[in-house]
Amino acid sequence: MKRFLDLADFSRDEIVDLLALAQSLQDKPQSRALAGKILGLVFFNPSLRTLASFQAGMARLGGSSFVITPGQGTWQLETRLNAIMNGAAAEHIREGIPVLASYCDALGVRAFAEGRNLQADLAESLFSMIDGLCDKPLVNLESSVNHPCQALADWRTLDELAVPRRAKFVLSWVYHPRALPLAVPAATLHMAAMRGMEVVVLRPEGYQLPPQIMEKARAAAALSGGTVSETSERASALAGCDVLYAKEWGTTTYYGDVEADSRLRADLGDWCVRERWFKNAAADAKLMHCLPVRRNVAVADEVLDGPRAVVKREAFNRLVVQMAVLHRMLA
Amino acid sequence: MKRFLDLADFSRDEIVDLLALAQSLQDKPQSRALAGKILGLVFFNPSLRTLASFQAGMARLGGSSFVITPGQGTWQLETRLNAIMNGAAAEHIREGIPVLASYCDALGVRAFAEGRNLQADLAESLFSMIDGLCDKPLVNLESSVNHPCQALADWRTLDELAVPRRAKFVLSWVYHPRALPLAVPAATLHMAAMRGMEVVVLRPEGYQLPPQIMEKARAAAALSGGTVSETSERASALAGCDVLYAKEWGTTTYYGDVEADSRLRADLGDWCVRERWFKNAAADAKLMHCLPVRRNVAVADEVLDGPRAVVKREAFNRLVVQMAVLHRMLA
Amino acid sequence: MKRFLDLADFSRDEIVDLLALAQSLQDKPQSRALAGKILGLVFFNPSLRTLASFQAGMARLGGSSFVITPGQGTWQLETRLNAIMNGAAAEHIREGIPVLASYCDALGVRAFAEGRNLQADLAESLFSMIDGLCDKPLVNLESSVNHPCQALADWRTLDELAVPRRAKFVLSWVYHPRALPLAVPAATLHMAAMRGMEVVVLRPEGYQLPPQIMEKARAAAALSGGTVSETSERASALAGCDVLYAKEWGTTTYYGDVEADSRLRADLGDWCVRERWFKNAAADAKLMHCLPVRRNVAVADEVLDGPRAVVKREAFNRLVVQMAVLHRMLA
Repeated sequence: MKRFLDLADFSRDEIVDLLALAQSLQDKPQSRALAGKILGLVFFNPSLRTLASFQAGMARLGGSSFVITPGQGTWQLETRLNAIMNGAAAEHIREGIPVLASYCDALGVRAFAEGRNLQADLAESLFSMIDGLCDKPLVNLESSVNHPCQALADWRTLDELAVPRRAKFVLSWVYHPRALPLAVPAATLHMAAMRGMEVVVLRPEGYQLPPQIMEKARAAAALSGGTVSETSERASALAGCDVLYAKEWGTTTYYGDVEADSRLRADLGDWCVRERWFKNAAADAKLMHCLPVRRNVAVADEVLDGPRAVVKREAFNRLVVQMAVLHRMLA
Repeated sequence: MKRFLDLADFSRDEIVDLLALAQSLQDKPQSRALAGKILGLVFFNPSLRTLASFQAGMARLGGSSFVITPGQGTWQLETRLNAIMNGAAAEHIREGIPVLASYCDALGVRAFAEGRNLQADLAESLFSMIDGLCDKPLVNLESSVNHPCQALADWRTLDELAVPRRAKFVLSWVYHPRALPLAVPAATLHMAAMRGMEVVVLRPEGYQLPPQIMEKARAAAALSGGTVSETSERASALAGCDVLYAKEWGTTTYYGDVEADSRLRADLGDWCVRERWFKNAAADAKLMHCLPVRRNVAVADEVLDGPRAVVKREAFNRLVVQMAVLHRMLA
Repeated sequence: MKRFLDLADFSRDEIVDLLALAQSLQDKPQSRALAGKILGLVFFNPSLRTLASFQAGMARLGGSSFVITPGQGTWQLETRLNAIMNGAAAEHIREGIPVLASYCDALGVRAFAEGRNLQADLAESLFSMIDGLCDKPLVNLESSVNHPCQALADWRTLDELAVPRRAKFVLSWVYHPRALPLAVPAATLHMAAMRGMEVVVLRPEGYQLPPQIMEKARAAAALSGGTVSETSERASALAGCDVLYAKEWGTTTYYGDVEADSRLRADLGDWCVRERWFKNAAADAKLMHCLPVRRNVAVADEVLDGPRAVVKREAFNRLVVQMAVLHRMLA
């Protein structure tokens, strides 16, 4: 495996196989499998889980890693093609990425969406450029509209919890003070569709997921026997749901318009998951979230501290599945 | 050992035993003792010695480590229970700490005092919460009112210098432009009392250590055969002293009141240790300080650059004793 | 080897020998040569290549490393002797450097020029102090007027490209929005002179290299059979050149005077390397640069993306030659 950029690049069987490798590495640790191997990690944006779990994962497999954070200890990196670089950025990714790749055996890069132009972000124009500049195995640590490591960890979490393949999975928009990227909702939606679930996207008006993302998920659902639908009606969406996956994202109707987004979300403060949301859900319905989560803003304490919340297990599974990705790339 | 949070959690014999382990790891390095083990390090506050020595210590024992710095590369972490998280912090320690703990074999956390409410800081309310959230071995890298790694290193330094158990140990307040936390003075006082020394706390009015800290130390002294007293008279305190341990801290009379503290310390600029302070001290009296030290503000060049200063040995001993703590926790 | 501070501290044969070791470590990797060894890295200034390649190099040789960044995660470090430390810096390098050295087997330090007083910077007064404080092997990761790791990597790159020893090597000033230090031009000039090349320093008026640097290079050229000259005439300098090494630096006529430097460089925007610069150069003349490079400001896209540019190979060679330095110091 040379690239881990998007779950959609793999067949369902290949993902199931990768999850089996993750399990086998848990059952029989291979503490020297990546001895002498080096992972380079480049974070254009902040991180907690990704930063810690990739370093820990390499160490658990006997390898090592280094971290580069443009703008903190390293200068800012320019990403625009043909830029006349007389501003803040001292180096272009056209040099920076190949150079860092030359120092390691695999590279992981996090580069969030710019959040200005929806089509550019959907096209993954920045990550495609990085992809083209890296001649070593490359892992997407979250790009404009993807987060395959999170999606893989969530798939494993569903399996561990024995959530049936056909179960009802509701991806619900939740409140946040600011517009956040589409990466996790897009990756989560695709994962659940690919797993074969009955997926419902629940979101207020103005926050519908872009047609390209919905259609890609529908195509995956068609192959796996799942379904994908979309609604703004919370009660019907949550009725009988087995999994509520909460996630914050920005308006797509006025993508990149901070003021319009603020006006739109001003009245949406009740999109904070509370126990009463589960009134008509399956008795043991689960609450998932990729973290970080703003308590009592996106999800209430009563849910996060109760038995439904499996968010810490999802986070631990980041480590588990990423070790499988690294093993497949480098062992 | 599952916790290393406070010297007072251990008996004197247990500490002596831990110091013996530290010595034995120096005599016979065990370069593979922690092979495959991972230490997570979380720094809510800056560090030089702790940051470097814990990474070096894990490496010397064959293990590895990762570093998380909330607010730098990682978002800010909320610490208040039941907070409505619509401010700067993106994640709560109720998620952050257990998740990081799940990636490693032991966790070290530095979280300085808030410095607003003395009783809350004395109660170690934040570190207690962290303690409760961490199901892996936990090391205190400096909390509100404790710094056990520093205290253990200082104990070893006193032993190496063959300072007698009953020697006179003066913990003296020294000047600093700002109010600093009580962690090191409290930990140092307790260490010297527990070691069995004749401890004198020398400080100007307004800077007395809180009764809880003094009483805890007196109880330790009673068990070890030492004594603890307190004074604002420099000449008598320093007469015959074998060790002068210099440390900066904030007013306890007006705890958390920055302006009152500034007024109080405005006239205390002469609390900078100079060679003349040792006029009536033991001939080879030592100057100790946990570092970082502001030269010519807290301690003069003439002392730091002279033969009395053992501050670099104290700092090196951080590495030595922490390897013993890690070995006891993880080997 | 206890110090790697300046190529000029070594004979030409010693450098050739070090480059042979670099090659042999590429041919036959020694993945356990530095097992158990720890490199401490201190960055007073930002870095990409140095930060990544030293960590990667230690890992490739079986060792490990830690990174300290004063002002980011670690407090600011005072460097002035006899300072009364009541400002921003909490610790002096007189404590900080020896303490960090005590935690590791070798120390690397980056400390750029202050850029105020040319004679002080030429005297390497700060790095000399650091040198005197460090009782472990010490590597210069870029000081006021030196960058020996870059120079060594560039020498290897010239060898790999089979650039003849006597070839014409033009070190050319290029545009940058701000005055940059003399470290790389000084180190590059000395390297090319020491290698035995026909070296021409091409720069506009006001940017001549200091006499001390020119004379030091001329002495090296005399020993190696090379030559060193200086001009502001671009056409004659580039005629027949085999290598164009582009580099930005600040005015030496008005050293440390930001406004004078800005005025001087205001008209120098055409000192951006373009393909037409090579009109009368050797057919396969190479473009070298230490990176980071501002595209279309210092060097145009058309050159950086064309076959002349060997900048990524230079950067990769940082890793290769630094492994030889570390091996010589620690194996």
